[in-house]
Amino acid sequence: MVRIGLLGCGRIGQVHARAIKDIPDATVVAVADAINAAASDLAARTGAEVRDSQAVLESADIDAVVIGTPTTTHYDIIHQAARAGKAIFCEKPVDLSSDRIRDCITVVEENGVAFFTAFNRRFDPNFANMQTRIVAGEIGQVELVTILSRDPSPPPIGYIKSSGGLFRDMMIHDLDMARFLMGEEPVSIYATGSALVDPEIAAAGDVDTAAVTLTTARGAICQISNSRRATYGYDQRIEVHGSAGMLRAQNMLENTVEVATAAGFTTAPAQNFFLERYERAYAAEMVAFVSAVHTGTSPRPDIHDGLKAQLLADAATLSFESGRSITL
Amino acid sequence: MVRIGLLGCGRIGQVHARAIKDIPDATVVAVADAINAAASDLAARTGAEVRDSQAVLESADIDAVVIGTPTTTHYDIIHQAARAGKAIFCEKPVDLSSDRIRDCITVVEENGVAFFTAFNRRFDPNFANMQTRIVAGEIGQVELVTILSRDPSPPPIGYIKSSGGLFRDMMIHDLDMARFLMGEEPVSIYATGSALVDPEIAAAGDVDTAAVTLTTARGAICQISNSRRATYGYDQRIEVHGSAGMLRAQNMLENTVEVATAAGFTTAPAQNFFLERYERAYAAEMVAFVSAVHTGTSPRPDIHDGLKAQLLADAATLSFESGRSITL
Amino acid sequence: MVRIGLLGCGRIGQVHARAIKDIPDATVVAVADAINAAASDLAARTGAEVRDSQAVLESADIDAVVIGTPTTTHYDIIHQAARAGKAIFCEKPVDLSSDRIRDCITVVEENGVAFFTAFNRRFDPNFANMQTRIVAGEIGQVELVTILSRDPSPPPIGYIKSSGGLFRDMMIHDLDMARFLMGEEPVSIYATGSALVDPEIAAAGDVDTAAVTLTTARGAICQISNSRRATYGYDQRIEVHGSAGMLRAQNMLENTVEVATAAGFTTAPAQNFFLERYERAYAAEMVAFVSAVHTGTSPRPDIHDGLKAQLLADAATLSFESGRSITL
Amino acid sequence: MVRIGLLGCGRIGQVHARAIKDIPDATVVAVADAINAAASDLAARTGAEVRDSQAVLESADIDAVVIGTPTTTHYDIIHQAARAGKAIFCEKPVDLSSDRIRDCITVVEENGVAFFTAFNRRFDPNFANMQTRIVAGEIGQVELVTILSRDPSPPPIGYIKSSGGLFRDMMIHDLDMARFLMGEEPVSIYATGSALVDPEIAAAGDVDTAAVTLTTARGAICQISNSRRATYGYDQRIEVHGSAGMLRAQNMLENTVEVATAAGFTTAPAQNFFLERYERAYAAEMVAFVSAVHTGTSPRPDIHDGLKAQLLADAATLSFESGRSITL
Repeated sequence: MVRIGLLGCGRIGQVHARAIKDIPDATVVAVADAINAAASDLAARTGAEVRDSQAVLESADIDAVVIGTPTTTHYDIIHQAARAGKAIFCEKPVDLSSDRIRDCITVVEENGVAFFTAFNRRFDPNFANMQTRIVAGEIGQVELVTILSRDPSPPPIGYIKSSGGLFRDMMIHDLDMARFLMGEEPVSIYATGSALVDPEIAAAGDVDTAAVTLTTARGAICQISNSRRATYGYDQRIEVHGSAGMLRAQNMLENTVEVATAAGFTTAPAQNFFLERYERAYAAEMVAFVSAVHTGTSPRPDIHDGLKAQLLADAATLSFESGRSITL
Repeated sequence: MVRIGLLGCGRIGQVHARAIKDIPDATVVAVADAINAAASDLAARTGAEVRDSQAVLESADIDAVVIGTPTTTHYDIIHQAARAGKAIFCEKPVDLSSDRIRDCITVVEENGVAFFTAFNRRFDPNFANMQTRIVAGEIGQVELVTILSRDPSPPPIGYIKSSGGLFRDMMIHDLDMARFLMGEEPVSIYATGSALVDPEIAAAGDVDTAAVTLTTARGAICQISNSRRATYGYDQRIEVHGSAGMLRAQNMLENTVEVATAAGFTTAPAQNFFLERYERAYAAEMVAFVSAVHTGTSPRPDIHDGLKAQLLADAATLSFESGRSITL
Repeated sequence: MVRIGLLGCGRIGQVHARAIKDIPDATVVAVADAINAAASDLAARTGAEVRDSQAVLESADIDAVVIGTPTTTHYDIIHQAARAGKAIFCEKPVDLSSDRIRDCITVVEENGVAFFTAFNRRFDPNFANMQTRIVAGEIGQVELVTILSRDPSPPPIGYIKSSGGLFRDMMIHDLDMARFLMGEEPVSIYATGSALVDPEIAAAGDVDTAAVTLTTARGAICQISNSRRATYGYDQRIEVHGSAGMLRAQNMLENTVEVATAAGFTTAPAQNFFLERYERAYAAEMVAFVSAVHTGTSPRPDIHDGLKAQLLADAATLSFESGRSITL
Repeated sequence: MVRIGLLGCGRIGQVHARAIKDIPDATVVAVADAINAAASDLAARTGAEVRDSQAVLESADIDAVVIGTPTTTHYDIIHQAARAGKAIFCEKPVDLSSDRIRDCITVVEENGVAFFTAFNRRFDPNFANMQTRIVAGEIGQVELVTILSRDPSPPPIGYIKSSGGLFRDMMIHDLDMARFLMGEEPVSIYATGSALVDPEIAAAGDVDTAAVTLTTARGAICQISNSRRATYGYDQRIEVHGSAGMLRAQNMLENTVEVATAAGFTTAPAQNFFLERYERAYAAEMVAFVSAVHTGTSPRPDIHDGLKAQLLADAATLSFESGRSITL
C-alpha cells in the first residue's frame, strides 16, 4: 500500500484524490491546504485526515506526496519532501525558474527519491497510443509533427499575470508532447505570438495566440500552435507524419450524436476543458506514479523532463521577445 | 464508333447526351422528343440531327438507342428497336407491368440485341467498389445488408399518381442494389409503408415512407428503408455486414468543409439529388453500355435484371397491401 | 442515504457495486451470492457485509435491493423484496414469461414499492441525448428508426440454450430502445432470423442474425437488426429520421487515433463489449434509481416497461416462428 | 465567344483544353507545342488547328492565350501576347525571378490586357467555400491558419533541380492560399526545411520537408508545412481558426467506402494527386478567366498576386538559408 499525503486541495488536488481512490494499492492518508475548509472538505470525501503541510511532510506514515499547491510553493515543498525521503508527484511546472528546477534536481538526486512531473497528456489514451505506435515503427521515421492546442477561453487575468506567460504556462504541455513524440531533442526553436483575444493580456505583456517551430538534429520539424480561445470546446489535436504513414489523434467530443438538417451534419462540440478531456489521463498518470513507487522504479516523466520542457518554454519566450530563432 | 439515337430529350436524356460526349468511340447521331424545342435544343448542344422517333428507330446510321422517354412508351420503342436490330439502353423501369417486360424479353432475345437496364447505382464508384470487394471475399459471407435511401423531397403529386407507387418507382433501385450486393436472389419479402410526408400521397393510394425486409435461401437478410423527404439532402447509404467484416458507403457531401462553433462540428449537407450524386454513375454506365456494344458482349444489368427488380417491387407492393410476407 | 443490498456478485453485480460507490448518498450495506467466494470478494472491495440472500431481503437496515442474480431467481426475489417494502432495481429481463412478470407487477403495486427495470441503454449519454432532443422536437415527428446492434461474438452455447432466444435475450434491448425513442407503442411486428454464425445455435433452435420491423399507429416505422458477431467490436448504432431532420448516434471507438497509409485512413475499432461501451450508462442508471428512491418518485424504466419489451420479444419470436406479421 | 490559343500541350495544357471544351462561350481555336505530336494530338481531340507559337500570338482570330509551356518561356510569351492585345491565362509561377515578373507587370499594364495567374487552389470548391465564409464573417477575425500540404511522392530529381526549390515550386501554392484566406498581407516570414525523403534532393541543395510561419500586421499567424511524400495520397488540408469559430477543409478521398475489421474502420486513401484532386478547380478557374475576358473585368488572381506569392517564396528561401526570420 502506497500511503499518500496530498498537498493542495483545490481542483487539481481533488482530481488526484479521486484517481487515488480508484487504485487498490494506494490510499490518501492525509490532506493539507492553506484554506482549512478545502482540506476538511476533501478529507471528508476521502476518509483522510487533515494535517498541516509541514506535518504531512514529516509524517512517518506517509510514503509519497502529491503536490498540487501554487507553483511558487513547489520549491520548498520539494526540498522538504526529498529530505524526508518521500516520493514526489509534482504538478507542472516544477518551478518558473530553470535554475530553481536545477536546485530541485540536486536535492531529489541527493536523497534518491522518486520524482514524477505531472505532464498528464502523456497518459491520455490517445496520445499514449500514438507514441507506442511511433516507437514500434508503425509510421517509420518521424518527419513532421503538428500540435494544435486551444483552450475554450482564457483564464482570469490575475492568473495570467503570475503564470510566467503563455509559453511557460500553456505551451509547456505541447513542448513536452513534442519531445515525447519526436523521440529526439529539439536543436532550434522559433516562436511568435499575438494578443488577439483580450487587450488586457497584451497589457500584461503576454500573448494569447502563439506558434512555435522546433527542429531536431535529424531534421524532423514540429509546429505547435496555441490559442486561449475556441468556441467549440477544448481543442487538443496532434498529428505525426512519418516516412511510412501518418498518425493523428482527433478531439474527444461530448457525445457521438450527430444531427442532420439543411445546414449539414452536426456533431457535438469537443469536450469542454481539461478536467473532462483528460479524465483518463489523470487516472493513468497516478497509476503510473503509484506503480513506480511500489516497485521502486523511476517514474517518467521525471524531473529532468520537467526541466527540459521548461528550458524549451524559456527559449520560446526568448525567441518571441527577440524575433530570432534560438539554437538550443 | 457507336452511333447513338437518343429518344427523349428531358433531364435524363440530357444527362446521357453529356455522358456520350465524353466517350471517344461513341457519338449521338440523332435526337428525338415529342416536344420539338427540347429536341432542337439538345441537337444544338450535341451537334446531332433532330429526327422523329420513328425515323431514329429506322435509321441505318444508328447502332444503338438510348430510351429516356416516359415509361408508358418503352414497350413499343423496345419492340421497334429490337426488330430494327438496335442495341438498347433503357431507363428504368422497363415497364410497370412484369408481363409486358416478359414480352420485351421475348422480342429482345428473338432479335439478339443487346439490352441494358439503366440501374445507374450499380455504377456509382462507391457502390461498385463495395460490390467488387464483397465478390473478392473481403468481408466473408454476406449476412446483413442495410440500405437507407431518402429523397430530399417528394416529386409532384401528378408524377406519383402515374409512378406505379413507391415500391416500383423509388425502392426498385434499392431492390436492384440488394440483388447486386447479396449475390443471391431473395426468397421472401415483407413490406410496410406509411404516408407521413404529404396527405395527397395517401389520397393517391401511395406511401412516402417504407421499409422492406428480404431474405435469401442461405439466410442472408436485407433491410431497406425509403423516405420521400430528407432535410439534409439526398441520403444514399448502404452497409453490408459479413462474417469477416463490414463495408459501408457513406453519403457524398457537397464539399469537405467543416465549421466548428459552440453548436459542434458541422459538415456540408449531402449532395442534393440524383443528378449531382450519381453524376459519375451516369457517365460510367454509358461507358459500360458503349463498351458492350463495341465488343459485342452482353451488358449488365440486362433486361432480366430489369424484370427481377420489377418482380420484387410487385411483391413488395403486394406484401404492403396484404400485410403478409410474400414467398418468391 | 439509500442503503442497498446487492443480490448477485457476478460481473454485472460488480458493475453496480462500483456505480454505487461513486454515488455520495448511497451505500452497499450487504452483498449475497450463491457462490461464497464471489460474495466475500465483493464485500471486501466495497466494505459491505456478506449476508445470505434471505437475510438481505429481511434486513431492516436495507432500503433497496439490486437484483443481479440469474433470471430464473428474479420472480421469487421480487416477491419477497416487494413484501418487505424494499425498492427494487432488477436486471433485465424481469422474467422470461410475461405472465410471471404480470404476477410481479401485482406484488410490486400491492406493496407500493419502487421498481426499476435496468434497461441500461436508456442511460447511455448518446442515446439519452437523442431522446431528449427528439422529445424537444428537434427533428419533428419521428418517421423511421434504424437500430443496428451487433455483439462482437456469441455467448457460450449453454447460455444461449437458457436465454429464451435471441429476440428475448439480445433484441429486447433494441425493442426497449424503439419504444424509448419512438414515443409511441408499436402496433405490428415482423421478425425474421437465421443461424449463420454457429450451427450449434441452429441446433439449439435459436438464431444469431435477425431483423425486426415495427410500426406504430401513426405510421412510424422502426427497423432493427441484430448479429451475434462483429469483427470490429460491439456495434451499437441508432438513427432516427424525422420530418425535420435526422439524429444518429455513432459507435464509441477505443480511442481517437487514426493512421493513414496506402490502405487509407484507419481508426480504432469500436469499444469491444457492453461493460466498456455502457460504462457511463451503468453509472447513470444507478444514479437515477437512487435518486428516485431518495425522492420517493417512481423510477423509469419501470416494471411495465419491462413487461412491454418482453411482450414485443414474445411477438417477435412468434412472428419469426410463424413467418407472419403480428398485430399487437 | 472567347477564342483561345493554347500554348503548351502537355499534361496541364490538356487539362485546360478539357475545361474549355465544357464552357459554352469559349473555344480553342489553335494549339501550339514544341513537340509536334503533342500539338496535333490535342488538336485532334479539340477540333483546333495546329499553329506555331508565334502564329498563335499573332493570329487575329484569337482573343486569349493559355500559357502552359515551361516556366522559362513565360517571360517572352507574356511580352508578345500583351503587345498583341491578348488576354493572358498563365500557369504559375509567372517566372522564377521577381524582377522579371515586374517586367511582365509593366508590359501587361501598358497594354491593358487581362492577366490571370493560375493559382488553381483558389477555385477548389472546398477552399473557395471557406474563403467565402471567412469574408462573410462566419468565424469572426482570422487568428490562426494551418495549411498542411503533402505530395504523394517527389518529382524527378531533374525537375527539382530546375524548380527554384521547394519554397518556389511547391509551397508557393500554400503561400498564395495564406494570402487568399487571411485577407491581409504577411509582414514576417520564418522558414525551416530538411531533406528527409531523398538524399539526392539534399545533394541538389533543396529540401523535401519544410515549415513556414507567417504573421500579419494585425497579429494573425499562419503555419504551413510541406512534405514531398505521403503514403496515403495527396494531402491537402487547411484550417482557419477565428475569433468566432473554426473552418477546416478535409481531404477528398477516393470514395466514401469504409471497411470495418478487427483493425478498425478504414476509409479510402486521399485522391492521389493534383489532376484528380483539383479537377473541379481547373474547370472553375477557366470559367472565371473566360468570364472575365467576356465581361471585360479584371480576373483574380492577377499578375500582382503572382508577384506577391513569388516574393513570399523568395523570402522563405532566404529565411531558410539564413536561419533568420525575414521582415517583409
